[in-house]
Amino acid sequence: MANHHKAKRGIPPKSDFNAWYPAIVEIADLVDKRYPIKGMDVWRPYGWKAMKRIDALTHAEMERTGHDEVHFPLLIPEDLLEKENRLVALLKAARDAGVDPSELRMDEEPAGFKKEVYWVKHAGENELDVPMFLRPTSETAMYTLFPLWVRSHADLPLKTYQIVNTFRYETKQTRSFIRVREIHFFEAHTAHVDEEDATRQIEEDLEIVSNIMADLGLPYIASKRPVWDTFPGAWYTIGIDVIMPNGRTLQVASCHHYRDQWAQAFDLSYEAEDRTTKFCHQTTYGMSERLLGAVVGMHGDDAGLIMPPTMAPFQVVLIPVAAHKSEAVMETVRDVETTLKSAGLKVHVDDRDLRPGQKYYDWEIKGVPLRLDIGPRDVEKGHAFAARRTGGKQPIPLATIVDSVHSELNEIQKSLVESSNQHRNQIVRSATSLDQLSDDGHIYEVAFCGTDSDAEVLEKNSNLTLLGEALEPFSESRPCIVTGQMTTIRQHIARMY
Amino acid sequence: MANHHKAKRGIPPKSDFNAWYPAIVEIADLVDKRYPIKGMDVWRPYGWKAMKRIDALTHAEMERTGHDEVHFPLLIPEDLLEKENRLVALLKAARDAGVDPSELRMDEEPAGFKKEVYWVKHAGENELDVPMFLRPTSETAMYTLFPLWVRSHADLPLKTYQIVNTFRYETKQTRSFIRVREIHFFEAHTAHVDEEDATRQIEEDLEIVSNIMADLGLPYIASKRPVWDTFPGAWYTIGIDVIMPNGRTLQVASCHHYRDQWAQAFDLSYEAEDRTTKFCHQTTYGMSERLLGAVVGMHGDDAGLIMPPTMAPFQVVLIPVAAHKSEAVMETVRDVETTLKSAGLKVHVDDRDLRPGQKYYDWEIKGVPLRLDIGPRDVEKGHAFAARRTGGKQPIPLATIVDSVHSELNEIQKSLVESSNQHRNQIVRSATSLDQLSDDGHIYEVAFCGTDSDAEVLEKNSNLTLLGEALEPFSESRPCIVTGQMTTIRQHIARMY
Repeated sequence: MANHHKAKRGIPPKSDFNAWYPAIVEIADLVDKRYPIKGMDVWRPYGWKAMKRIDALTHAEMERTGHDEVHFPLLIPEDLLEKENRLVALLKAARDAGVDPSELRMDEEPAGFKKEVYWVKHAGENELDVPMFLRPTSETAMYTLFPLWVRSHADLPLKTYQIVNTFRYETKQTRSFIRVREIHFFEAHTAHVDEEDATRQIEEDLEIVSNIMADLGLPYIASKRPVWDTFPGAWYTIGIDVIMPNGRTLQVASCHHYRDQWAQAFDLSYEAEDRTTKFCHQTTYGMSERLLGAVVGMHGDDAGLIMPPTMAPFQVVLIPVAAHKSEAVMETVRDVETTLKSAGLKVHVDDRDLRPGQKYYDWEIKGVPLRLDIGPRDVEKGHAFAARRTGGKQPIPLATIVDSVHSELNEIQKSLVESSNQHRNQIVRSATSLDQLSDDGHIYEVAFCGTDSDAEVLEKNSNLTLLGEALEPFSESRPCIVTGQMTTIRQHIARMY
Repeated sequence: MANHHKAKRGIPPKSDFNAWYPAIVEIADLVDKRYPIKGMDVWRPYGWKAMKRIDALTHAEMERTGHDEVHFPLLIPEDLLEKENRLVALLKAARDAGVDPSELRMDEEPAGFKKEVYWVKHAGENELDVPMFLRPTSETAMYTLFPLWVRSHADLPLKTYQIVNTFRYETKQTRSFIRVREIHFFEAHTAHVDEEDATRQIEEDLEIVSNIMADLGLPYIASKRPVWDTFPGAWYTIGIDVIMPNGRTLQVASCHHYRDQWAQAFDLSYEAEDRTTKFCHQTTYGMSERLLGAVVGMHGDDAGLIMPPTMAPFQVVLIPVAAHKSEAVMETVRDVETTLKSAGLKVHVDDRDLRPGQKYYDWEIKGVPLRLDIGPRDVEKGHAFAARRTGGKQPIPLATIVDSVHSELNEIQKSLVESSNQHRNQIVRSATSLDQLSDDGHIYEVAFCGTDSDAEVLEKNSNLTLLGEALEPFSESRPCIVTGQMTTIRQHIARMY
């Protein structure tokens, strides 16, 4: 964007991302951070609209893939954790029996997350017999009910999801959307007849991730997390990390394959076709408001936000120009509004009593992808003047306004995806030796097949974190960056949020 | 409905409403009550779909009336209540100065609701410096931020709303949707330049209520609550009570006019056009999942639920009949599905491998308003066989299926509204003397203009509760049922949920 935008309305330059991000989320009216609990922001109308549009993409994917939406209680009684303790015991027993450690990730302490939850121990003037906590995520709540819902193979797969508020007693510095204490959270939980079907679910999850990331124009890396970053009780975890403008990665989603470990702990079994009783295999797939944080971070510029047309609260803003000079202006604006809305487009008419320049400025900050100005001369000529938030202006004919707007929005989406790809290419670098690595705002792609202690060498040497194993290996073997052993295992290391 | 339905799948007869209601909400798959916290049900997919359809009606009304959707944090720090304590002090001072007591309703104890909230006093392993509670409603949270959003008259009216989970430590017996501890809740909060504009807001709220009640086909009474049932800090409260099948009333919504009482306590003021600083006048309007409870209760019958077409998760269920005999059956069913969905209708194809009779039975329980059966002979004749959940079957032509379905759904809606009106006429009776009153499943309409102690006489005598003053008075004066004084004040007394 042009230089004259710099520093306007107190927006720091985006090159200073750590100043720009917290400023823009408030200046663009997404959230108000003045609520008296740190990390619990108030969603303002524009921010909430944006979040709901992202949720709509998620709902559509859930419907396409046959997931049913449910809604579980927020509060979880502490005594339900007994079953999780059983899970720990099971896993320890397995380890004692010499099972592959990659299948054994579990917190040593039965419920390590207890340090990160909010507790409800009092109600009214009473102390509760059984303390409850605010869900950080809903495995425990859901898996208590699932055994009541699943009897036979005919009940499987069970594919459920919910979009709810979850809570985390965050002690690190909070950041809007990125690290908050009340989290707008999506979680899908599924149960399957066997490991293979659960694996197919993970593949479906990755397809959904890919669709949503394409919609949002976000560059990302999918990695099978190292064992120490695997979710408790999971066989494996796949993390989805968006590449942020400052080169740090932001985990916006994750999928867990549990095999039948949780099912054993929660007695989630079914009668198979052959009449035997078997444990279900389960998966979880989570995403959060971090998706909005990634959109804000990735697409904004010195002048404000840029909302991808797929999730923009308003895809088009209509600005009447010099409407006092000709009645035809407002009439035309209203006609265009009706036409575009009937075509399913999200349209806003800015009829405030302000100069057009002020309106342009406001909508630029809010990142509306397409602005259409209509003044007396435009009406005469039968066109609207279209200005893309990503740059470029031209008149478009009113007669074919729906097609023209769609094509403008497509161009905008395309240009966002292109700059995402460019960004990825700038940030992600290959490294073949440890001395090439440093915490310099890049993500490094390496061949790495080492042990836990090799990984420690790698991380300490670079001051970066191992994201894990890329889902696509190298096509040919290369020497491991630490051990020198030949391997096709492709991994990324980065500074994570 | 026909007698043969009685007692099927364990549905008690609806005449035994107190047995029927708790059974049907589970049998029809709306909720699962087996979650281990009483009064916190799990929403199953069908129930959640129904609730979201009701929410969609609310969202549409909010958009029509220019309310902006916001989303506030769940947790409220206890120290924010200091401002409410100021409100109490203000009101006491006003009373001491001899102001009309009808303007003075306030709990004597600063925060009487403290007995009804869930407290978060611990997070992780820490005890919090400032305890927090789970919102029972969001006045305190919102009115803390509103003064930051309102500076001048140009910022008014401020019209906001949110749909969120709220909590109440309920000690009475819980009932799905009707009395629960985690409540799916709608709340609109507005701020205005003066009392008149706030009053216009209350009128708009009542118009919204009227639209939604018409959509849901619910018979209701709107009453200005007696002073002792007025919301704390409100000038007046209007309660919206649905007339349930057993003659009890269920408050599903309420509106509060605060005048500037809360604004004074929270320093919510603005610069008027004449440059003076004035306090805002405020209103609140709330509704909850009780709307769904009312729909369930009002429209169901011995065979199950009946969902009004305006909010049915599926308005039409398509049943392929003898599809194995002719490939044309499934083709036709899919064509009809596509056609109806393109017309914006909510359609479900039941292609389960079950006999049609079993499917009819299931969808009858779930209350889908219109069933369309399509078999080989229907395909030949170019029609579908339509069965209304409210009674009546007939073939309808495929060629004009969208129009025919709309007209069937209109008929169903009409018949639900008619039976609502009939129900109201059966339940609501006029009474002119105290000895006509009793707790016999009726609601009594009376002329009443007495004092608080007269009201006590009225309530004790009948074992019923005063709903309050009807918004439409009698057209001519009549003697007050207690004092005998002539009055046009029309009031209702009933057994409330």
